[in-house]
Parts: sequence; structure tokens; C-alpha cells
Amino acid sequence: MKPISVAAAFALAAVSAGAARADEGLWTFDAFPAAKVKAALGVTIDQAWLDKVRLASARLSVGCSSSIVSGQGLLLTNHHCAADCAQSLSPPGQDYTRTGFIETSLAEERTCPGLVADILLETTDVTARMLAAGKGFSGEALVKARAAAASAMTQQVCGADPKLHCEVVSLYQGGQFKLYRYRRYDDVRLAFDPGDPAAFFGGDPDNFNFPRYALDCAFLRLYEGGKPVVTPQRLVWNPAPPTAGEPTFVAGDPGGTFREQTIAQIEFQRDVSLPVELAELSELRGRLIRFTEEDPANARAADEPLNDVENAFKVTVGRLAALDDPEFMAARRAAEADLRARTRLPPGVDPWRDMAAAQKARARLFVAWRQLERGADSSQLFGYARDLVRGGLERGKPSADRLPRYADSELPGVEKALLDPDPIVPALEQLVLEFWLSKSRELLTADDPDTKLLLGAESPEQLSRRLVSATRLGDAGVRKALWDGGWKAIQASDDSLIRFMVEIDPEARRARAAFEDQVTGPEARASEAIARLRLAAYGQSLYPDGTFTLRLSYGRVAGWTWRAQTVGPFTTFAGLYGRATGQPPFDLDPRWIAARHKLNPDTIFNFVTDNDIIGGNSGSPVLNAKAEVIGVAFDGNILSIGGDYGWDGRVNRSVALTTAAMTEALTKVYGANALVRELTDK
Amino acid sequence: MKPISVAAAFALAAVSAGAARADEGLWTFDAFPAAKVKAALGVTIDQAWLDKVRLASARLSVGCSSSIVSGQGLLLTNHHCAADCAQSLSPPGQDYTRTGFIETSLAEERTCPGLVADILLETTDVTARMLAAGKGFSGEALVKARAAAASAMTQQVCGADPKLHCEVVSLYQGGQFKLYRYRRYDDVRLAFDPGDPAAFFGGDPDNFNFPRYALDCAFLRLYEGGKPVVTPQRLVWNPAPPTAGEPTFVAGDPGGTFREQTIAQIEFQRDVSLPVELAELSELRGRLIRFTEEDPANARAADEPLNDVENAFKVTVGRLAALDDPEFMAARRAAEADLRARTRLPPGVDPWRDMAAAQKARARLFVAWRQLERGADSSQLFGYARDLVRGGLERGKPSADRLPRYADSELPGVEKALLDPDPIVPALEQLVLEFWLSKSRELLTADDPDTKLLLGAESPEQLSRRLVSATRLGDAGVRKALWDGGWKAIQASDDSLIRFMVEIDPEARRARAAFEDQVTGPEARASEAIARLRLAAYGQSLYPDGTFTLRLSYGRVAGWTWRAQTVGPFTTFAGLYGRATGQPPFDLDPRWIAARHKLNPDTIFNFVTDNDIIGGNSGSPVLNAKAEVIGVAFDGNILSIGGDYGWDGRVNRSVALTTAAMTEALTKVYGANALVRELTDK
Repeated sequence: MKPISVAAAFALAAVSAGAARADEGLWTFDAFPAAKVKAALGVTIDQAWLDKVRLASARLSVGCSSSIVSGQGLLLTNHHCAADCAQSLSPPGQDYTRTGFIETSLAEERTCPGLVADILLETTDVTARMLAAGKGFSGEALVKARAAAASAMTQQVCGADPKLHCEVVSLYQGGQFKLYRYRRYDDVRLAFDPGDPAAFFGGDPDNFNFPRYALDCAFLRLYEGGKPVVTPQRLVWNPAPPTAGEPTFVAGDPGGTFREQTIAQIEFQRDVSLPVELAELSELRGRLIRFTEEDPANARAADEPLNDVENAFKVTVGRLAALDDPEFMAARRAAEADLRARTRLPPGVDPWRDMAAAQKARARLFVAWRQLERGADSSQLFGYARDLVRGGLERGKPSADRLPRYADSELPGVEKALLDPDPIVPALEQLVLEFWLSKSRELLTADDPDTKLLLGAESPEQLSRRLVSATRLGDAGVRKALWDGGWKAIQASDDSLIRFMVEIDPEARRARAAFEDQVTGPEARASEAIARLRLAAYGQSLYPDGTFTLRLSYGRVAGWTWRAQTVGPFTTFAGLYGRATGQPPFDLDPRWIAARHKLNPDTIFNFVTDNDIIGGNSGSPVLNAKAEVIGVAFDGNILSIGGDYGWDGRVNRSVALTTAAMTEALTKVYGANALVRELTDK
Repeated sequence: MKPISVAAAFALAAVSAGAARADEGLWTFDAFPAAKVKAALGVTIDQAWLDKVRLASARLSVGCSSSIVSGQGLLLTNHHCAADCAQSLSPPGQDYTRTGFIETSLAEERTCPGLVADILLETTDVTARMLAAGKGFSGEALVKARAAAASAMTQQVCGADPKLHCEVVSLYQGGQFKLYRYRRYDDVRLAFDPGDPAAFFGGDPDNFNFPRYALDCAFLRLYEGGKPVVTPQRLVWNPAPPTAGEPTFVAGDPGGTFREQTIAQIEFQRDVSLPVELAELSELRGRLIRFTEEDPANARAADEPLNDVENAFKVTVGRLAALDDPEFMAARRAAEADLRARTRLPPGVDPWRDMAAAQKARARLFVAWRQLERGADSSQLFGYARDLVRGGLERGKPSADRLPRYADSELPGVEKALLDPDPIVPALEQLVLEFWLSKSRELLTADDPDTKLLLGAESPEQLSRRLVSATRLGDAGVRKALWDGGWKAIQASDDSLIRFMVEIDPEARRARAAFEDQVTGPEARASEAIARLRLAAYGQSLYPDGTFTLRLSYGRVAGWTWRAQTVGPFTTFAGLYGRATGQPPFDLDPRWIAARHKLNPDTIFNFVTDNDIIGGNSGSPVLNAKAEVIGVAFDGNILSIGGDYGWDGRVNRSVALTTAAMTEALTKVYGANALVRELTDK
């Protein structure tokens, strides 16, 4: 079988957006369409089923999902969700992302820097309060008023309790606001990771492709008070292989989708932001690839950042392919026209027109906002300096007046990310800072005052070298002293990066304020108006766009047919051995070569289902009708990326790893017998 | 003044395509609209004017234009057109592209490897013969029959005379065929080059921008029999500065434009080829940037390739910006609809439908054609191996049966490029081959048989290292032996690259044949039919799309206004000194720092005109009404890139360097007094 490639995605003629299918949807747990599911799959999903799955689902702060699979706080997720942690924990001269972190003992499990896990306890509708808070405001003031109201509510409900986390979520692109209350765990430890060669077999060439042969799993464990958390709400581990056509459910936290956005909004992406991203990700990819080839230490340091960039590149390609497809866009246009036709607006009122105007402002303000306010978002040091400088100034104000990130309700998360010790790789930091400065000059132009503010008379190469070589922010102790010392300590600091950040921050804030005033604020107003019209026209049959909050999708184990090519739903261990060339990324882990004769070659390894999932669902459990875990989702096929804008059940597929393969491999390849006993209660 | 940036190009809302303006056009010398020009500019262009300029215009085989500016064969062109040559000629430890090649003496002028200059003597209409040759054929057979007829005609007119070069040019996208007969010079020597710091001041950030401060000139000299060629047809060098509104003419060889292509053709570019190019150029750019940072030898070796990639990147961005602009595309659609409305076609006949079908085939066959048949086009070694293997096989056939590149009429050019000694940089070759192999796997997918043919069980990294380390094709003597030995020598060779090429060539030829059969052939038929309809509807008021053949454009010295920003037409030396930060690419050449007090700060340095030019026009003389040289064109503003698809005189501008600045700098910065005397006849 020939998989569908990036080129195919470029070249499509994607698929028609078509009518909504029976098994589409990123459903919230408090509005799950159980009757529809009963009719489509013959499966009964009751409240107990939903509660059980919800309480066993844990969102990870690295942008992933996970599930509780033992009574001792064990979480199942993906290797690629634990890779940052494995890298941070690697002792000098060793690389857990490559060798794996193979079962040792509880005593050797170690805390992942910065990682937190959240389990959803409750959602409360706060739409009325959020609308009231924004009343009479517009632009930047609206954004601020809403953020302050949200912070007050989360503070009221969760308080300063470190075991709770609250957030206000805007659903239906502003049609509904809900307060989400989570149980938070801030000591999450690495328990098992098979390492790249097995987990990411096929590497970037195979990413977003199927057939696939990847053991993309990892196990983490929740700790509290230095001890594993007791978790009676765990899901049952079912090591039986999936069967074709079997109903499947995926619980997890799909990231932001754009299915409810207007044509003007997605045209902005197609014509402005996605082409900029495509070019930028590609160039950064090239710089990182060459960097990894320079020496093994670089290769180790840049492995995860490079994977992230390559993954984001494919997502960008897939998004552009969907938006460049005339049929797809025609379907989106028809949907918007349908809603407008069902809608009677007072004279002079037209939220679609307002949204289009906000997109013009977005195009105008986009570059300055992106380069100054978003900044060097892949630099750890930049993030530290930003939090220290902004946090220093903001904490001197009442919580409601601060930038939302520094409201009292958010500070514990900020502090954890800032103060947890986490190694810095100076050469890599220099590379990403140089890249950011160089792209800033390119996008803003050499003559722009913002470029001059960033660079002065220095070049991007020179400035990035100076900033990285002179800063001490890589030291968690130095960060703690500056954080504790507040704005006074910041003002007194002569650290290169702190000085640089103090210098550019006012202009970054201006870019942010202009953006909120002319883009985010007006967008929020228009989006809410359209959302209300949509809910009025179509009612409760809708699910909200993804928001990196807990959702449940339903579907079946199924391959697909596209352009006369049929792809079956399963791969086996035998296929893995057939695909191995001995050269990266198709080189087998030596443990797998050694274990070959012990493994059942017919073990079903990876499989696809037509569950509607999207980035953020990585690490989600794949459940059978009885809510037992039969796999872990880790990818989608290349055609599934168009799902950001609209879902096509004929060809969008999620890609998962079976519990059957995990059980077999844990036992026979890794000898992780204690782990298997814990999973299977034996 | 704030120039318009790449970001702006991404973000536009470009400009409307609008109606054709009075001063639009890439006019051929045999159909120049003298009456129109008289009316628009008040300038009389007679046959003597045209003949004089034509005979003083020399096309350079590096894809540039030039003009004869002395009686001793001296050519004026751009630094960036001579940079390849300067790099090839640099002695070990020295880098002429950086230091420049400053006037020494005639005896020290040295031949640029592979470079030829062609002066157009005559054009003859051969439309009837070309149509007759294609009669009854379609697909690949049509392409072959036409190529054979063209080769026979060029052979008949130019024979084996190394001083002549003939080619059949398809004008109006197939509406007309003409035989172009050139005087060829194959010993072109480097006489003067100021080097990068002055010629490419502002580097990539300033490229395609204005205001601009670049001494982008170089001087070459035609030689024959070891002596400078006597050239009485030289143009007069006028060192007076240009004035605003002054009529200007640009003679040169604009490359391929797409103004006459159908909507289906440019949509293919927008949706398939340009996004692939954008991503690929960006990644290669990133790899090369990091490569240059590794050590000074790499920086020297990759300087020119990196400039080329960055230039191509901006062109791609500009093209996408034009094609993503709704207004622009609407204008193109309206133009196509207008022609269709004026046209009555027999039932069942529809060349636009046929063209659209060919684009579907193009999308399907594009990747295999691109990766196998186009191949690693930025690798020198790949080109050598391809010519040796194909040339070896093809030369055993009658000329008419060969691939067109190896027809008797083409062999002298192929041999020169293949056999001239030209240094290889193995590390750079390895980089571009690895990149090509890696992109092939990505675009074709890992499972594609073509990927397996290219890689076998090796990785792109491993295979590229093996090919480069083991080949001896960098040695011109080895190449000569293989070329002279023909197919037998190729078969007997154990050279790594020769073996690899022999292995992949049959599949590359299959990809080529399929492309010609389903794309190039059907396109040619449809294109010719549409061209005939267009000529019938609009007659002689049209100029043909650019074909890298000699054209003349007319216009005026003029700035522009876009989005309420007005950019004036001139910069001065004072502006250069104001812009210099001391850091690359805004670091001044030490000679310029030293000469500052001697230079007149008000000297007009660079200027813009509304002449309609495009890539390939680099090095073109800018002429005044008396056909005197007043500048050399070296760039366009970022908005001019949309000119590939349609021209907008309101904002498309060409960027040129004044003779005034060249004269002042040659004298006072470089002390190149003999050169100035030669230019000014003093």
C-alpha cells in the first residue's frame, strides 16, 4: 500500500467538505449525543460511562492527553509527549529519548520539569457573567475586562489551592463560556519510555502517514507528597487486538480547530499566516537539520525541537492544502451562506462584515504582534526573561489589572515553568534567537523602527551570541532570586537578556495592545454574535470547536479509500521487520532485533479508526464500548489535517498503537514485567 | 521611507491587475511599437537606434543581460551575474566575490569557466515549418518531432561554426516560432568586480527593496584568439545623473513570464508548484545558512548558492502574493473571459478545457518528474554525471533521435559546461545531494518505488556522503576521458556517481516521457490554439511573454506610491553612509570608508524607473533617448515580482545603478583609472 504524502497533500484536490457525517464531532462530556451514538454504533453510553472516562482522563501541560491505567496513578500517553521530560532527565552522556527510560523501580521514577496533569472535575456555565463583564467595552478594554472577570471567577472557585486549577473556556467561538474546574497534579514522573528508535520508527517520513509501525507510548505517574497517587478510577487495560468495524471512542483534549470560523478568518490563514509559517518552519527545519549533523551533542539537543518543527510543517502543509482546495472552500462558503440565509439582522448590523474588517486589521498588525509580542517562542531563555520582566512589573499591580498570564490564578503554573530546574543548551538557544531576530528583520524590513529596537547596530548573529553567552538565566537559582526580588531586582539586574527584555518590552506591549484593540476585541464581539446566530439556527446538534479541553469522539476501526487506493486498518510486527533498512529513521532498536524470534509476528501493531481527533489528542486512550483501553492514539493520516477546518469521515483517520502490541513488547522486548503486572492486575 | 517587505507581499491585498498601461511591454526588436513610444514619451526610435542597441546587447549564459560599453569588447553587467565566475577564479585563500577583482591589466583578465555571450544578429519566422513538423503528432511524439525540426533548422543555419549559435524560440506561448541567430563568444573574461560588500550592500534584507545602495556592477570582456574583441558597435557611456521623469529604455533578456498562460496554468503554480518551492527553498536556505556559519571556507563556498536561494525565495513569495490576491486573479479571469467571448469555436473544440486537463496530469506527474528528471539541479556533480551518462548514450544515435540537449547543435555548449575546469566543493555538493534525496523521499513517500530506486537501503545522509567521497568527476580530466570514451567508457566506469546515474536514468527518462506525453505535448497544442485565437482577436498590439531573448522596454525615471507611502526615485552616497551599521550585511567595504571624504555625497547612487523588466534583465543597460548608457538594471522592487503574471505600472519598478555612481566610485574608491578612461574614451 502506498501512503498519501505531503506532496499529495500539496497536490490535492482534497476531499469535499460535504455534509456532516454521523460520526463527526469533538463532543463535550456534558453534551454527548448518546442517542445518536446508540443509533450509529449500537452502543449505550450512559452517565456512569462518561463520568468514569472523564475522571480517568488527564490533560498534560505539554499539549497532550493521557489516561489513568492503574490504581497507582499510572498514566498512558505517547512517547512524543514525554520526550521533553526524558530529555531533561537524561544524565550527562546519556540520552533517554534515544535509549529509552526502561522500567527500573518506583524509587527511580523522577519528576518531569514543568509538567502538570489536570483531571476535569466539573464544568459550570458562566456565559451570563462573562457577557455582563464585557458589556459596554470594546477593543483592548473588552479583552481586559473579560480576562479580569475570568480570573476573579477562577480565583473564587479554585482559590489558592495548589490541588485545583480553574479556567474559563470560550466554547462555540464565543457562543458559550464555561468555568472548568480541574484536579491538578504538579508532580508527574517518568515511569517508562521505549525511546525514539521504537517509538518514532520511520521518523519524519512516516509521520502523518499510514501504514505505520511505531511504539509511540510512554508511561508517567502522578505523585503527591512524594508518593504515587491512588487512583481507583483507572481504566481497564484490555490487551486483546482491535477488530475491523469495532466501535471506538477517543477521550482527550483536541487543540484549537477552526470549523466555526468565518470565511474571512480562514482566508487570513490561507493568504497570510500559513504561508509565513510554511516558509519559516521550513527554514528553521533546515537550520536545525544542519545543526544536528554537526555533532552528536547537537543531535541530542535538537532532536525534540526538530521533531516539533517537522510536525508543525506537515500540519501547515495539510492546512494549506485544505484551504487551497476549491471544493473544500466552496463547501465552507455554502455553510456560511446557509447560516446567513437563516438569519435576519437589524439594518446596519452585520457581524460577518465586522469580522472581515478585523481580519484586515489582523493582516496589518500581524507581523509586529508576531515578532515582538509572540517573540522567540521556541527559546527557553526568552521565555524565562519574559516571565521575569513582565512578572516583576505585573505582580506589583492588583490581580485584575495585570496581563492575564500574571493574574493570581495563573501564577502557580508560571512559577513552576520558570523555577523548575531544566537544562539549557546554549548553542541551540543561540540558533533559535538568531533565527527569530533574522526573521524579524526580514518580515518587518531593515528600516522598520521595531527592527532597529531589536537589533540596534548589531546583526542577528552577533546579538544572539552576546545575549546567550552573557546571560545567567539558565540557572534556576538565578531565576528564583530575580523572581523573588520582583521589579526592583529586575531593574538592578545587569543580565544581558534581562536588559534586552526590559528594552523591548514596552514596544511588545504596544503591539499587544494594538492587536487586542483592533483585532482580538472586535473579533470576540463578531464571533459571539455569529455564534449566537448559529446556535439559534441549528440548536444543540452542534459541538464546539476544539479548545484543548476534554472531548469525546466516537467511530469505528476502519481503513479508507482515496483516489482508488485502499488502505487497510492494521499493521503487524512482521511489517515492522520488513520495513527496517538499518538506516535511520528506519533502523531498529537493537532490543527489537534481539527479541524478534520471541515476538508473535502477527501481533497487530498500529491501527486506524475514523474517530474525529486533532492535535492535542496525542496520548488519548482509544476505548472500546466497555470503556476499556485498547490503544493509544498518536497521530492522524495526512488527510486528517484538513480536519482543522472541516471533517471528512471518508478519509480522515486517527492512527493508534494497540494495547496488544504494547503488552507483547513490554514483556518480550523490554522485560518490563512489573509494569505489565500493574497494567493487567496480575 | 519604509520599503515594502516580504511580509507586505505576503500580506497584500496586492494591486489590481488593471488595464494594460501605455508603457507596459517586453517588446521584441522586430516589432517595437515606435509610434506608441513617440506618443507616450516624445522620443523617436528608428531602425538605426534599434540596430545599434541590439548589436551592443549581449546575453550571458548565466541567465543575465549585458551591454558593450567600449570599443575593446568591454561588457557592463551586474556583480551578481559575474559572482559565479569570480568565485571560480579565486585563488586558494582568496575570495574575489568578497574582495572584488579590481582592475589590474589586460594580461590578468581570466576566462570565466562555462560562460558564453550571445549577440543577436537576426530573427526569421519559422512558424509554418514548425507547425508542419508537428502535424499529426501528439504527446511525447509532438515534443520530439518539434525538437528535431528545430535542431535541423539551427544546424542548417548555424552549422558547426563555433562563432554562431542558433535557437528556435516559441513566442506568444506557441503562437509564433522564430529562428534566432546569434554571434557567440565563448571566451568571456572577468575585468572588474567590486566584490560583495559594495555590490550587495544590504544583502538579502535589501534585495527586492528600495531605497537601495548597491554598486551591483561588474565588467567582463569578450575575447577571441586570446585577444580582446574589437567592438565598434559599443554604446556611449554617459556619466551624467538621471533626472526624474526622464524617458528610459532597458534592453535585455527577460526570463519566462506567464502573462499569456491560462487560469488553469497559473492555478497549478499557485496551488501546487509554488507552495512546494516555497517550502523547499526555505529549508535549503536554512541548511545553507547554518553551513556558512560552520567555518569561513563553507561561508565562501556557499555564498553564491545562498544568494541564489534567497533570491528565488523572494521571487516565490512575490509570485504567491500576486496569485493569492483576489483582485489580481479577478483581472486575469476577466481577461480570459474577454478572449473567450470574442472567440467562436467549433463544437467539441475547447483549448482551455484541454489546457485544464493537462494541468491535472501535471499535478499527477509533477513530483516524479521533478525529483527524477529535473533531479539535483543545484549539484554541479549531478549535472556532470547526467551529461556524461546521457551524452554517452545519446551521441550514439542520429542527432534527430536524441534528447534535444544532445542534438549536434547543442553539443558545443554542453561540452563547454562539462569540460571547463571549475572547482568543486565536496561539502557543499554533499549538502545539496543529501537535501535532494531527502526531499525526494518526502515528496514521493518512503514507500514509493522511485524512492527505493534512489536510496536502496541507504539513508539520504549516507548515500550522499558515499557518492561525493568516492567520485572523481570533480576532475575535468576525468570528465574529458569519460566524454571522449562515450558509452563504452561509461559502462566500464566504476565511479560512484556514474554508477548511480546509470542506475536511475531509465526511470528518469520514463518520468520525462510520461510528462511530455501527458503534459508538455498536450499543453503545446492547447497553448498554440489559444495563441492563434489571441492574435486573431487582438492583433499586433501584443508583445510576447518573456523567453530569455532580447527585448526592449520603455518608461521613465519615477518613484511610486503604495498604501499612502510615497517612495522617491533616487538614493545618494550620503544615504549609503547613513545606513551602514558596521555589521553584515550593512558593513561597508574598507575602501569605501577610506574614500568617504573624496566622494561627492550627493552623487545619485541607485534609481528606479517604471520600465517593465523581469528576472533575466539583470545586467541590462538603462538607456536614455539617445541610446546612451545611464545605468545598469539589477533588481525590481518587491511588487514587481507580480509582473511574472501581469504588469502594474503604478507600482512595478525596476532598480538600477547610475553610471554617475559607477564613474565616481571607479575613480575615487577603486582608482580604476584605466577602466574609466576606456569607458569615457578619454
